[in-house]
Amino acid sequence: MSLLGIDIGGTKTVVAIADDSGKIIAQSRLNTPREQGPVAVLAEIERSARGLLTHHESRITSVGIGCGGPLDPERGIILTVPNLPGWENLPLADYFSKAFGAPAYLDNDVNLAALAEARKGAGVGIDHIAYFNIGTGIGGGIVIGGKLYRGCGNAGEFGHQIIVPDGPPCLCGKWGCLESLASGTSIARRASESGFVGSAEEVARAAREGDSVARRTMDETAEYLGLGVANVVNILNPRMVIMGGGVMKAADLLLDGIRRTVSDRAMTQLANDVEIVPGVLGDQAGITGAILLAIEGSMSSCDSTGESEVGIIRREG
Amino acid sequence: MSLLGIDIGGTKTVVAIADDSGKIIAQSRLNTPREQGPVAVLAEIERSARGLLTHHESRITSVGIGCGGPLDPERGIILTVPNLPGWENLPLADYFSKAFGAPAYLDNDVNLAALAEARKGAGVGIDHIAYFNIGTGIGGGIVIGGKLYRGCGNAGEFGHQIIVPDGPPCLCGKWGCLESLASGTSIARRASESGFVGSAEEVARAAREGDSVARRTMDETAEYLGLGVANVVNILNPRMVIMGGGVMKAADLLLDGIRRTVSDRAMTQLANDVEIVPGVLGDQAGITGAILLAIEGSMSSCDSTGESEVGIIRREG
Repeated sequence: MSLLGIDIGGTKTVVAIADDSGKIIAQSRLNTPREQGPVAVLAEIERSARGLLTHHESRITSVGIGCGGPLDPERGIILTVPNLPGWENLPLADYFSKAFGAPAYLDNDVNLAALAEARKGAGVGIDHIAYFNIGTGIGGGIVIGGKLYRGCGNAGEFGHQIIVPDGPPCLCGKWGCLESLASGTSIARRASESGFVGSAEEVARAAREGDSVARRTMDETAEYLGLGVANVVNILNPRMVIMGGGVMKAADLLLDGIRRTVSDRAMTQLANDVEIVPGVLGDQAGITGAILLAIEGSMSSCDSTGESEVGIIRREG
Repeated sequence: MSLLGIDIGGTKTVVAIADDSGKIIAQSRLNTPREQGPVAVLAEIERSARGLLTHHESRITSVGIGCGGPLDPERGIILTVPNLPGWENLPLADYFSKAFGAPAYLDNDVNLAALAEARKGAGVGIDHIAYFNIGTGIGGGIVIGGKLYRGCGNAGEFGHQIIVPDGPPCLCGKWGCLESLASGTSIARRASESGFVGSAEEVARAAREGDSVARRTMDETAEYLGLGVANVVNILNPRMVIMGGGVMKAADLLLDGIRRTVSDRAMTQLANDVEIVPGVLGDQAGITGAILLAIEGSMSSCDSTGESEVGIIRREG
């Protein structure tokens, strides 16, 4: 009896098998072949999961899936994902439910990472948490007392707040969003505009080695992120902001600048209330959250009344 | 047996006596003599309230006070108010509790207006509401299922999100905030920079009469407000945004532009989820909320657990 967790990212996908308690016993990481479209991606994920199962001879009892949004967790379908073209209205939960003959649940990957950091990572014991995921894109999650706050279903799109009104185009179809300035993709683009050609990781490495263009690019990135965090601080007044995602592997280059910008730009009282920390789960945040989803079936939401939850319909195979 | 409500604004203060059910039976509106400092303001408010009482011969059983923040509702004190200099650490609840020999409760004026619009105004029956108050300054409130969401105590500072990173200085001590661009004060300042000298109200009137500078100033104001609403929509994914406060008396000049900007700039899915409406309580929103506070003693908060509330300590006179 095993749980299957799937964390689908624009670049990498993680598949994991966990025992009943949520302990991961086998895991694989694959490049998301997104240029081949959703059918190929789903087949590749399924194959990878079956590969893990073969070695561990377990039956899957529940599947938890994290993917970029906006999506509809109740119906288990993707609505639109800026960095996964062609995935509109994809019935993701249904696919894996049928494939493994088990109920499958879908939620926003960053919400799941937020929940994992809040419950099992940097935010344990903290009531009011905002989580930023800085990766290929930028997502966010709001966790209040261990529960996600969803608004109408997709709250926490921190990456699409407007930071520079006449800023660059964003994959969401708008422009000037935080994601268009400070995501991994945008860091590489901004560096290349200044003559440094390389990925965000390469920009960070060069910055550490003293390259001035790379260093300036990272400093500006910290300032953009700081503006985004400052706005979230002013709007939500959280106790903690957790900065996660692949780009935060460069926390050594970014965190001081983010904190300084928040201190300079958020309201003093609210800036004093908040602690800004890196995530501690690293690459494992998303898959840890997907396993939490497989365990709990539907993630509880922070709701005004404490009575209702945003349910996720079970998809029996 | 009567309730006393006090709504202290940077420009005007409203004092009202209500019956046990919250129905306002007498009300007065006075200019806030803020240049004379807090002692004079409090004495003037007290005198005004006693004047209403004289005519209605009731004993006050509870006092609800709304004032700008940040403040500490639990201790009933003001922390700092950008547009009320000299009010730092003022024990406002204590003052009125002693003056009227009744418990007194303090909360953020815009939170109270938000709650009034949500419970008795434009938002009745709506679960996820963000309220903007565009007046002398710009404040906000988050109401989830009829309860305020406070974060660490002062969530909803929508006016101090950064809209233009290198924008003008703001009274909060920072710069480029929504308030520094689109509050009543800022509308007048921006118009004067283009050669039109007059209050925000006069700018609006001139815009209606076809003055091109005034018209452009109001169009830009709508766009700034739209950016601020778009960010709140992306972060909170509310079902409704209610636009209240004195400046929204020019809703005829602003609302279309705000809606268009949100549609252009917020994520499509989240923009589709939200209805943007003017408040219906007008000038009465704040005092209606102050009376709600007097009735309920401490305003219930949206809390993750549904167990605890942000309490407001009773101040017995």
